[in-house]
Amino acid sequence: MKKLYVIGLGPGGGQDLTGRAAAALEASDVIVGYTVYIDLIRSAYPHKELRSTPMRKETERCRMALELADTGKTVAMVCSGDPGVYGMAGLCYELSPGWPEVELEVIPGITAACGGAAVLGAPLMHDFCLVSLSDLMTPWEKIEARLRAAAQADFVLCLYNPSSHKRKDYLQKACDILLESKSPETPCGYVSQIGREGESYTVLPLSQLREAQVDMFTTVFVGNSQTTVIGGRMVTPRGYLQR
Amino acid sequence: MKKLYVIGLGPGGGQDLTGRAAAALEASDVIVGYTVYIDLIRSAYPHKELRSTPMRKETERCRMALELADTGKTVAMVCSGDPGVYGMAGLCYELSPGWPEVELEVIPGITAACGGAAVLGAPLMHDFCLVSLSDLMTPWEKIEARLRAAAQADFVLCLYNPSSHKRKDYLQKACDILLESKSPETPCGYVSQIGREGESYTVLPLSQLREAQVDMFTTVFVGNSQTTVIGGRMVTPRGYLQR
Repeated sequence: MKKLYVIGLGPGGGQDLTGRAAAALEASDVIVGYTVYIDLIRSAYPHKELRSTPMRKETERCRMALELADTGKTVAMVCSGDPGVYGMAGLCYELSPGWPEVELEVIPGITAACGGAAVLGAPLMHDFCLVSLSDLMTPWEKIEARLRAAAQADFVLCLYNPSSHKRKDYLQKACDILLESKSPETPCGYVSQIGREGESYTVLPLSQLREAQVDMFTTVFVGNSQTTVIGGRMVTPRGYLQR
Repeated sequence: MKKLYVIGLGPGGGQDLTGRAAAALEASDVIVGYTVYIDLIRSAYPHKELRSTPMRKETERCRMALELADTGKTVAMVCSGDPGVYGMAGLCYELSPGWPEVELEVIPGITAACGGAAVLGAPLMHDFCLVSLSDLMTPWEKIEARLRAAAQADFVLCLYNPSSHKRKDYLQKACDILLESKSPETPCGYVSQIGREGESYTVLPLSQLREAQVDMFTTVFVGNSQTTVIGGRMVTPRGYLQR
C-alpha cells in the first residue's frame, strides 16, 4: 500500500513528540517538510531522505509528498504542532484525489494552544475558540466577526499568528474588538518559543495585552469572565469548586 | 523540590503519549488518577504506587495528589487527553495555594479534538470552537449562547460530552441551535472510542447529525461553510487552493 503519514511534531524540538509519531517517522523512507522543521529533526534521522520546501510553498510541498508516496516510498510529511490545526492535513486531503492509490494517515501532535496553555497554567479549562489573526487567506472582516462573537459569548480565546512584519497592529486591533464585551481586567497571557530554547511567558490584563509587542512565534490567550491569576499563572476554573 | 506533574495520556491507551509525559511518569513515585485511566496504564507501571478515585471525585483526587506530593514523593496526576482541556490542570492550580511548597508542572497531551480530527480527516483546519455540552457545571443557557455565537460567526465546532444517560437529547438540541445559521448540508462527523479498541467514525450532514445516537465516549465535529467531504473524509479547507 502506498502511504503518506502527515505527522505533528508538537510545538518544540521533539520532547512532545508522541510514540505513534516517532514510530511513523521510523517507518518512513522520506521525510518532507518546511525547511525549519526539517532542520530541527535532521540530526535525529541521519539515514532518511529529507526533502524541504520554503515557507509559502505549501501546495508544492504537499504535491511533492504525494508524488513521492506514489512512487512506492513511505513518506512522512512533518508539521510543527498538529497537522490538523492550521497545518498540512487539509491541503494533503484536498490534493489527494490526484494520487488515488496513496493512503493518507494523519498523526496528531500537541498544538500550540495545548502546549502554550500548559506553560501559562490552565487557561483553556472551559469552552474556547481558536482564531488565527492571519488575513493571508481569510478576510479580516471575517476574523473580526469571529472575535466579536467569541467575546460576546464569554469564550476563552487562543490566538494564533498574532503578528507579523506586515501586521504589527493586528493584536491591538483584536484586543479593541474583545474589549467591546470583555473587561479590561480580564487575565490574559502569551507564550513565545513554546518548547524551544528561550521559551517565555507573560501573564497580564487585557488592557495591557493591547500594548504588548509579540511576534509570529507567540501564542496568545485571553480569559473568560471567570479566569483568574493564581501564583502568577493564568487559570480558568472549570467549576468544580464553584458548583 | 516537591513536585506534582499533571499529565495528559492522550485519547487512547498510550500510543499518543508524548516522550515528555513518558519521562515524567517514569520519574514519579506515585501515579494518581480516575479509576479507568489507572487501569489503562497499570500494566505499564508495575512498580509504581497507583492511587485512584472514582468519577465525580475530582476535588478529592486533586487534593490527594497535592497531599502526596507534599510528603516529598514525586507525584503524577494522569488525565485522558490533555489535562488543560476539561481536565484536572485547573483544579490542581485552584487547590495549590493550600500546599505552597508543591511545584505544579502541566504536561500536555493530545486532546480528543485533535485525536478525533485526525481520524475524521482534517475538520479543524480553520478557526474553531470547542464546547462541552455538559451542563453539570455550566448553565445550559450559556452553552446555548456559545453554540449560537459560534454558528453565526461560521466557526467549525468540536463538541465534547455530547450525551449522557441524563442528557440523551442534548446533541439534538445543540444541532437545532446550529441549524438556525448553518446549512443542513454542512458536513459533520463524530468519532467514538478515539485511539481505543472499537474506534469508529461517521461523516454525515448536520441534518442527520441531529438524529444520531452518540454516547459520552464520542466527540462531535460540525463544519463551517467551506467544509467538504473528500473520499469519505471531513475536510475544512484552510484556503491554500482557494486564494
